Amino acid sequence: MKIEIITIGDEILIGQIVDTNSAWMGKELNLLGWDVVRITTVSDKEKDIKESFDAAFKRADIILVTGGTGPTKDDVTKTVLIDYFGGTLIFREDIKKNIEEIFANRNIKLNDLTLSQAYVPDNALVLMNKVGTAPCTCFEKNGKVLISMAGVPSEMKWLMTNEVLPMLEKRFNDGSAVVHSTFLVKNYSESALAEKLECFEKSLPDNFKLAYLPQAGVVRLRLTGRNTNKEKLEVLSEEFSSEIRLILGSDIYSEKDLPIEILVGNRLKELGIFLSTAESCTGGNIAHVITEIAGSSEYFKGSVVSYSNEVKHDVLGVSCESLENYGAVSEPVVREMLKGVSEVCKTECAVATSGIAGPGGGTTDKPVGTIWIGAKFKDEYIVRLFQFGTIREYNIRKATNMALLMLLELLENK
Amino acid sequence: MKIEIITIGDEILIGQIVDTNSAWMGKELNLLGWDVVRITTVSDKEKDIKESFDAAFKRADIILVTGGTGPTKDDVTKTVLIDYFGGTLIFREDIKKNIEEIFANRNIKLNDLTLSQAYVPDNALVLMNKVGTAPCTCFEKNGKVLISMAGVPSEMKWLMTNEVLPMLEKRFNDGSAVVHSTFLVKNYSESALAEKLECFEKSLPDNFKLAYLPQAGVVRLRLTGRNTNKEKLEVLSEEFSSEIRLILGSDIYSEKDLPIEILVGNRLKELGIFLSTAESCTGGNIAHVITEIAGSSEYFKGSVVSYSNEVKHDVLGVSCESLENYGAVSEPVVREMLKGVSEVCKTECAVATSGIAGPGGGTTDKPVGTIWIGAKFKDEYIVRLFQFGTIREYNIRKATNMALLMLLELLENK
Repeated sequence: MKIEIITIGDEILIGQIVDTNSAWMGKELNLLGWDVVRITTVSDKEKDIKESFDAAFKRADIILVTGGTGPTKDDVTKTVLIDYFGGTLIFREDIKKNIEEIFANRNIKLNDLTLSQAYVPDNALVLMNKVGTAPCTCFEKNGKVLISMAGVPSEMKWLMTNEVLPMLEKRFNDGSAVVHSTFLVKNYSESALAEKLECFEKSLPDNFKLAYLPQAGVVRLRLTGRNTNKEKLEVLSEEFSSEIRLILGSDIYSEKDLPIEILVGNRLKELGIFLSTAESCTGGNIAHVITEIAGSSEYFKGSVVSYSNEVKHDVLGVSCESLENYGAVSEPVVREMLKGVSEVCKTECAVATSGIAGPGGGTTDKPVGTIWIGAKFKDEYIVRLFQFGTIREYNIRKATNMALLMLLELLENK
Repeated sequence: MKIEIITIGDEILIGQIVDTNSAWMGKELNLLGWDVVRITTVSDKEKDIKESFDAAFKRADIILVTGGTGPTKDDVTKTVLIDYFGGTLIFREDIKKNIEEIFANRNIKLNDLTLSQAYVPDNALVLMNKVGTAPCTCFEKNGKVLISMAGVPSEMKWLMTNEVLPMLEKRFNDGSAVVHSTFLVKNYSESALAEKLECFEKSLPDNFKLAYLPQAGVVRLRLTGRNTNKEKLEVLSEEFSSEIRLILGSDIYSEKDLPIEILVGNRLKELGIFLSTAESCTGGNIAHVITEIAGSSEYFKGSVVSYSNEVKHDVLGVSCESLENYGAVSEPVVREMLKGVSEVCKTECAVATSGIAGPGGGTTDKPVGTIWIGAKFKDEYIVRLFQFGTIREYNIRKATNMALLMLLELLENK
């Protein structure tokens, strides 16, 4: 089943927002064994939108369209849909009622502009949007389907999960299977990993494929197989996975395709212990990625972001001697930060970072990208020196991942 | 000048990574007055890539291609380029030297797979990639240009800034002008703002357009005008901008199109004062967005992420009475957090948050989305209650923005 995604909006073309919807949709559809064969972003111009519909109908069976469904003048999708598929606008009381409920729940005053969302094409199947004002409309053409959704990520996700995917599954499932195995690998760059796996990769049959996805210090290695015979596919996939395990050994830190912060959270919960973080160059990002996970209060107590030396000393108890003799970016300071934060926050575990994130602040001895990272579990410490690059954002993300990986390493076999 | 962006990679179609490159490129090109008319993401299949080239050449003058340029087997762009534009591969000593230098700087061992990047089509203009191993190649077809770049964001950005944009500017500048004015607006939802501006928007001539870009609690309102007469365009744009200022007054918190954290940072620098943050439900995100900005150590001292009540009491000095009588999510607690963190970190300013980010943890009295937010400057405090929605990530982002906006408000006219 071939699917195309069309995203409508000048704001994406001029780069005022990043299209995160398509990636989310691609992931969900892929899990159901469907191929997203193309993602297209077009302007709010009617001509461009129609052209993209024409082209997509030639290639795909299902076309998922997001964006341009707001009530304001710059949103033209409804006009285009009427023009493209025919039909006339009708007012639907059930949609009006839904919009009124949403506004009542949010305690916001409803205006006429928003109520105009209750007008929909009479030839569309309407899927009710329970979390927003723009209804989802579905159209048919020669056995193919086009579905138009709101571009607001939370609304699109709700609609896909609750309405669109269940409808598509009922209607289009053709029995073809896709199997993915993901290996999260540390200690390799993308090309070093590819070199390590070169012979293995060449030995794979045509319906299996390896992909290398580097991510701030780690590589997600994905093995994908396709076949109509699902059982055979799974046997083969397991066979190849075993070979990968043999080659990479303990450099595979997980086969669960989950962010490191979730892997760490799960391990802390299993052990019934708590974490705190002491952050200098990561500036609160470790605490942030941990607390983005719902339920993180079960294993996370808090953080001290000690951006200045004063805070390192006053709050974390880092000694003036260490700060003076070795500088803030040093092993002794990170060790004292670990000790300090686990005492202050009363936690068994801690991670800490101190480094030069850049782009300024580097010296000959400690150039930009020099970062000391530590992890602590009770009396066990790991503290290591890393030399990253010159890009601030990347250094922060990489240091965050390394700190969490070091903690994971420390908690292994506990 | 019409430009299309083509992004190559299965990893984007299956949602393993989000395409942030296109937005960045769109923004840069737009600033030069060029229109990105379409963004297309295609798979790593040669047929799909060629089809996308064919279609783009029909519509656009310049085609910017990213991705698929790595040395591993899943990267096919080079093969497609040879096939599409003819030419044969030649080995270039200067590229080899560049790759060797990059690896020497990073202190990484060079392998043969990586060195294969020094083979390029002989009919391509090569732009040297000083920050990565994949050279940038440019091809001509009927006066139109296709440029292939690495998909790694840092490499693409370096190439665009240092090589591609200067080259395109020299060759394609046709004198057409675009003027954007951006107004950052608070206290309005997207539709309420559109209603407020309805009459004004209807009065605009055809070559001017308003766009509403809602972003976690604020709306970026963008006025765009196009004309070949740049002077006339600027006069008209200023006229319409004045009208917008009259209508929205102090709900416009900035006309500089900058993230709130940069506006706050600039204000703190102007005043020569320091900020600290005390974060419960935002979990370190305020500190994170502030410290993502290079140079933030000039105005930011640190943060206490007090995720547990213990840390609120032990580190920030929040009283047991307040925690027991009002609960952690309350005005008195946020007030004490503000006081505590500015004492502990020795700063003039502070922001603090305590709330229920969700999706769990809500009660009848304090449902998910209930968040108390405060800002402090010396002895002045603002503490307000907000009621957001049920989506954790959004609540964290919105609370972050509101906290920083409240601080901006407090620092006005100081």
